Amino acid sequence: MLRNIRRLEDHVSRHGVALRPHLKTVKCLDIAQLLLAGGTGPATVSTLAEAEVLAGAGVRDITYAVGITPQKLDRVAAIRATGCDLSVLLDSAEQARAVAAASHRHGQPIPALIELDCDGHRSGLVLDGPDGTANPALLELGRILHEGGAELRGVLTHAGESYSVRGREAHAAFAEQERLAAVTAAERLRAANLPCPVVSIGSSPTAHAARNLEGVTEVRAGVYVFFDLVQAGIGVCGLDDLALSVLTTVIGHQRDKGWVLTDAGWTALSQDRGTAEQELDQGYGLVCNQAGQVLPDLLVIQANQEHGIIARRPGSTAPMPELPLGTTLRILPNHACATATQFDHYDVIPPEAGAPLKTWRRFAGW
Amino acid sequence: MLRNIRRLEDHVSRHGVALRPHLKTVKCLDIAQLLLAGGTGPATVSTLAEAEVLAGAGVRDITYAVGITPQKLDRVAAIRATGCDLSVLLDSAEQARAVAAASHRHGQPIPALIELDCDGHRSGLVLDGPDGTANPALLELGRILHEGGAELRGVLTHAGESYSVRGREAHAAFAEQERLAAVTAAERLRAANLPCPVVSIGSSPTAHAARNLEGVTEVRAGVYVFFDLVQAGIGVCGLDDLALSVLTTVIGHQRDKGWVLTDAGWTALSQDRGTAEQELDQGYGLVCNQAGQVLPDLLVIQANQEHGIIARRPGSTAPMPELPLGTTLRILPNHACATATQFDHYDVIPPEAGAPLKTWRRFAGW
Repeated sequence: MLRNIRRLEDHVSRHGVALRPHLKTVKCLDIAQLLLAGGTGPATVSTLAEAEVLAGAGVRDITYAVGITPQKLDRVAAIRATGCDLSVLLDSAEQARAVAAASHRHGQPIPALIELDCDGHRSGLVLDGPDGTANPALLELGRILHEGGAELRGVLTHAGESYSVRGREAHAAFAEQERLAAVTAAERLRAANLPCPVVSIGSSPTAHAARNLEGVTEVRAGVYVFFDLVQAGIGVCGLDDLALSVLTTVIGHQRDKGWVLTDAGWTALSQDRGTAEQELDQGYGLVCNQAGQVLPDLLVIQANQEHGIIARRPGSTAPMPELPLGTTLRILPNHACATATQFDHYDVIPPEAGAPLKTWRRFAGW
Repeated sequence: MLRNIRRLEDHVSRHGVALRPHLKTVKCLDIAQLLLAGGTGPATVSTLAEAEVLAGAGVRDITYAVGITPQKLDRVAAIRATGCDLSVLLDSAEQARAVAAASHRHGQPIPALIELDCDGHRSGLVLDGPDGTANPALLELGRILHEGGAELRGVLTHAGESYSVRGREAHAAFAEQERLAAVTAAERLRAANLPCPVVSIGSSPTAHAARNLEGVTEVRAGVYVFFDLVQAGIGVCGLDDLALSVLTTVIGHQRDKGWVLTDAGWTALSQDRGTAEQELDQGYGLVCNQAGQVLPDLLVIQANQEHGIIARRPGSTAPMPELPLGTTLRILPNHACATATQFDHYDVIPPEAGAPLKTWRRFAGW
């Protein structure tokens, strides 16, 4: 985990831009201390509950990177009143008007970023209309915010589609797509005499692969702290980099089916099947011995509520290892965010050999 | 919820057998009070953490219905020492020997049920070998327990495959399959002069459809308390019976794609896609207005971490309703167990009109 954190910090700082880690993966104050400069920020969150916990722990610069709704703005203002510079995200005139109104109501400009859709993945404004002309909504939103008493903080985009392609070249292309969308939008705002101090891009694949960050002020990423089988499957990391696993115990066998049953079902692993569409489908997770060495071709092929079913990868000729009742195994998960969400704490193996496990609590909720 | 609870209680008590509710769905002491006679039991659990919480709250009769491992038996004995009659489940000689050894070690017979595999779903002993002769393992396990100082409490089976068929006739056939496996095993044990006081069967579909419970002493079920789209899809309940839903807010639109974005992603809904193989695929959930009325053909078609994407069911000609920014919606989930696991409490709507919401905590962990 420490190596993963350092790797992205080094890469981003070489480009002279800021890293704004996304805490939605780790949701943990102990890890926030390791991620955030001096524990104060900058940070990204995906819920106001995360922002409240982090602000309460002294984080002073947070972007809430899920589209804002009018009814959440009083909570935003309350967090800001504690001295935390919390900014919100939006992609519609209704939202911009709501942020302007809340800024008036609370007597303080609430900072907002305009979300851009750089790859058709989910939310955000497209830069250009179907006829190739600039989407007028960008300047409209900018003006509603800037002239309406809110603070136009900048633009933000996320290439969620970068998860569906493999290899550094493909990720670098998505990184450039993020950069181009964000920088173009920033230039259009500035050309219209609107401020745009922040130009924010990022996803774990693009953050690691980006070669040119000209015009970008900050990069966001989250899952890189732990990595997972999905990230390994698209070549962002190796299996050795996976820092999160689920410890489980063999509770039985169905030997004529080649099944080993464990007590880690989907309540532990999550139901994430993010590798299902990848070249190498890893089922519900890859099986390791307790020390973390991968057992060849052994997958969790089914996950019931409290039962995992382990079997050989379809077509494998690898020998089935003896895994007697009570054997402890370690499962590498498809998606670290989803698996971590199933737990209220981490059992942390300290870097010092022989040191006892530490318990680090997670936060949760909305 | 109260109607669902009463419905199964009435059905099972008409057959003169006991109901042993499975608390893995609700994981909540307030609901346990409603489910368990006088709050003392009988109950089923899927983790020792559940057993510890329930025993601590006064439940006196619990079956831990996931295969036991040797390293968990000291915890089992500790729970039993508090006055709770906790029984364990097993399907191998190694487990039976471990239970016998732990019974010696703790100076008290630990009660164990032998798990039977009645439908090839997961764990358990098959009744008969491939050549049609009785599986000798049943009597072997019975003898290890009974003669080794443990307590042979009985037999238990679960027709997990009943979830994959639709309609009362099909579920009744699985109920009879459960009954026949359990009663046959009980008769074989008794014919060998081994005790078998408990004959336990159940799953939500079979528990509701069972017509003949002769020889059965108890029925187990869990998800019937809330029901969900999977259960509705196989005809165990109607949509009106669904007692658990996720409240969410519209956070944006991608109008040219027909998308409505909400703040309920998979951290709220879970990633369960249990209706994917059913006649009517309900995506990640069916969309209702805040009052719980289903909006025709509107589904959560994608779930990201904190974003849900709502769109019309593929092929639908139903009009797309206006769902402005900030609209609150209610999502009916595929799988109540999975969705409930994503939350640490329930917001409970009391039966009395106009009464304020109650907060009921959930427990979790292993």
